[in-house]
Amino acid sequence: MRSYPSMTPTERKSEYDALMSEYERFKSLHLSLNMARGKPGKEQLDLVSDILTVLSDSDDCMDEGLDVRNYGNLSGLPSAKRLFADLLGTQPEQIFVGGNASLSLMYDLIAKAYTHGLRHSPRPWAKEEKVRFLCPAPGYDRHFKISESFGMELVTIRMTENGPDMDAVEAAVRDPSVKGIWCVPKYSNPEGIIYSDDVIDRLAALRPAAPDFALIWDNAYCVHEFAGEFVPFRDILSLCAAQGNADMPYEFASTSKITFPGAGVAVMAASRDNLDYLELLLTYQTISYDKVNQLRHVKYLKDRAHTLELMQRHAAVLAPKFEAVLDALETQIAPLDIARWTKPRGGYFVSLYAMKGTAKRVVGLMKDAGVVLTGAGATYPYGVDPDDSNIRIAPSLPPVDELRLAMQVLCVCLRLAALEKLGV
Amino acid sequence: MRSYPSMTPTERKSEYDALMSEYERFKSLHLSLNMARGKPGKEQLDLVSDILTVLSDSDDCMDEGLDVRNYGNLSGLPSAKRLFADLLGTQPEQIFVGGNASLSLMYDLIAKAYTHGLRHSPRPWAKEEKVRFLCPAPGYDRHFKISESFGMELVTIRMTENGPDMDAVEAAVRDPSVKGIWCVPKYSNPEGIIYSDDVIDRLAALRPAAPDFALIWDNAYCVHEFAGEFVPFRDILSLCAAQGNADMPYEFASTSKITFPGAGVAVMAASRDNLDYLELLLTYQTISYDKVNQLRHVKYLKDRAHTLELMQRHAAVLAPKFEAVLDALETQIAPLDIARWTKPRGGYFVSLYAMKGTAKRVVGLMKDAGVVLTGAGATYPYGVDPDDSNIRIAPSLPPVDELRLAMQVLCVCLRLAALEKLGV
Repeated sequence: MRSYPSMTPTERKSEYDALMSEYERFKSLHLSLNMARGKPGKEQLDLVSDILTVLSDSDDCMDEGLDVRNYGNLSGLPSAKRLFADLLGTQPEQIFVGGNASLSLMYDLIAKAYTHGLRHSPRPWAKEEKVRFLCPAPGYDRHFKISESFGMELVTIRMTENGPDMDAVEAAVRDPSVKGIWCVPKYSNPEGIIYSDDVIDRLAALRPAAPDFALIWDNAYCVHEFAGEFVPFRDILSLCAAQGNADMPYEFASTSKITFPGAGVAVMAASRDNLDYLELLLTYQTISYDKVNQLRHVKYLKDRAHTLELMQRHAAVLAPKFEAVLDALETQIAPLDIARWTKPRGGYFVSLYAMKGTAKRVVGLMKDAGVVLTGAGATYPYGVDPDDSNIRIAPSLPPVDELRLAMQVLCVCLRLAALEKLGV
Repeated sequence: MRSYPSMTPTERKSEYDALMSEYERFKSLHLSLNMARGKPGKEQLDLVSDILTVLSDSDDCMDEGLDVRNYGNLSGLPSAKRLFADLLGTQPEQIFVGGNASLSLMYDLIAKAYTHGLRHSPRPWAKEEKVRFLCPAPGYDRHFKISESFGMELVTIRMTENGPDMDAVEAAVRDPSVKGIWCVPKYSNPEGIIYSDDVIDRLAALRPAAPDFALIWDNAYCVHEFAGEFVPFRDILSLCAAQGNADMPYEFASTSKITFPGAGVAVMAASRDNLDYLELLLTYQTISYDKVNQLRHVKYLKDRAHTLELMQRHAAVLAPKFEAVLDALETQIAPLDIARWTKPRGGYFVSLYAMKGTAKRVVGLMKDAGVVLTGAGATYPYGVDPDDSNIRIAPSLPPVDELRLAMQVLCVCLRLAALEKLGV
């Protein structure tokens, strides 16, 4: 195997023709595979299905004198607050336990900023001339879509291997219309990087012009190693408080990739003042979240140590899948000088950079061969990757054998698209 | 016992003194009872706790080929849509199945009207000069609070024994700033009345000036008889559609008072066009609601007939509690000419009209004696009852013996307050 850029046009043409017949052969298999989303596979779901029976009768539903079946306790079960404080390294009184989706809690925060304002907002964001939001990219498409759906202007911040480009962030927050930033600090989506201490310190010490600047800290993968030991993470709430920014951070996490993706428990961690403010607004929205499911999680996950053990069992399922992805790229693509990719040790994604100007073509070729990938560009604000290069690979859903096949197809598609770009 | 208004001042004084010592005796019992909210009691929760175990292993979580544990199916499980369509007498394609609280679905509808507008909105309501909302009163305080929290002007509509005063509604909707109305059509909160066919026909045929007028149809008590046979109700969606108002109604219901109050399933029923519009906005808010819990409900409730059987078992628990309330009022208050009350056959409340100008005093006396009632005035817009008369009694939570005691206290308080008003 040789570097494609160093090949002659004739060599490329012959390579292309050979690959195209291979591609046609894959197409004839009529595959139907999905690598678009960080969906856990069946083996992971089965791994945690004992949670279904941890509450089996009326007596089980009593928690510290509280009947979890009835209305009440908007901010969550005290026992659930302690569990999540333990997991996040923060205090129970800084925890709000919600329903099954942290995305909903984030959306609700932004929605309330628009309709009512945050605690330090001079006015509801709906009354602002212009609202801008910082979007480290590549990043999580659903974060960007929330901002976009409220008509914010998305400001792209370059991601470095240590987190968002902090010089750019510090410059941007001098603009009072910049109201926040989306962060995934550990195993970021899709890069899989961990923010460095320096980046985190600078974020905690930001001096935004907007008094209601929101540091959205989506700690979605806080205990989600699939390779190696658990990597401790720092408590953003106390770091910000130490810098006089106690009300700046809003941390989110969920058990969607610990227990059931569709039936987990989500939490928001924030300063007590912020929670007091938000809980008052939330009393109009709901009477309580599903405390029966909260108690299921308390009884099933037990504590931090027990949860980390469970995550090792998830890791045992996920590791071979990530290895299959990285092995295929290493053996079939690395020698060709046409792409690069991240090599994460946790999270749910591999971030692949195809040859510039070919990501859409690769995703299109894959689709025609029956393998669905995240849309090219989705990891950038407005869905536009200026380099048309980044492709998010989500290996968790398919079984390993199907994944290996899908990666073979992907490698062929990467090569075809690169050859087309180089000229054949 | 004699009519208080016909007593002489001396007679009233002697009556008052006797009652006051009785009241002091109650106070010395240090009661702690709650009749403030329509919370089911423990016996009702125990009645339905078999729902905890209807899903017990991985195989149970497959529903028509769909693994309910994973992400996906934003609008709900197809099997759950069929169940709720069956219960509401509408079509599965007009059903959206959400999380555990219908209040959240209502709030989200209003929130989206503010931030994005409804399907026929000329602009988001946040951009409107003024938004008014019709509030049939007495009504459900949480409805009014949603409107109030968004800064709407609440327009009081008088409740009649057949539903909202339709002459007033028809006049009010000529104002284009009037954007909707809160309705609880069956066993209304707190009156317990059922809207008459004529009222429903006139609501369905409304010709509001606002193109995005929302008929909020909170069918919270649609199968919630506690006395007598199930009373069929009409499908508001098809009635409105027949009048050319297909996109006007938004119907809500939940299993909060069928299974677990804190862990039920909520639904919204609306035109397919409205659901298409709202589901697009909801894709930014969540990936999916808790389908595991949806499937629990499908397996536990089975169908309409089976659900109605279960409601008869709830009725058997509730009926003696409502009888205790009505018996106390009938024997201890009726002869005195100081109050009137509704005699519902379903729902969760008795609506009591104390002597004008005494409701706050009665609630205060009760509080001092350790019995919490819904705040006086709560059933009116802005929490202000112009007559200071209406008190919502929620008998479902306390056991019958405690309830009888609480009603004795209430009767004494009603009498004390009336005597004070009449002059002692």
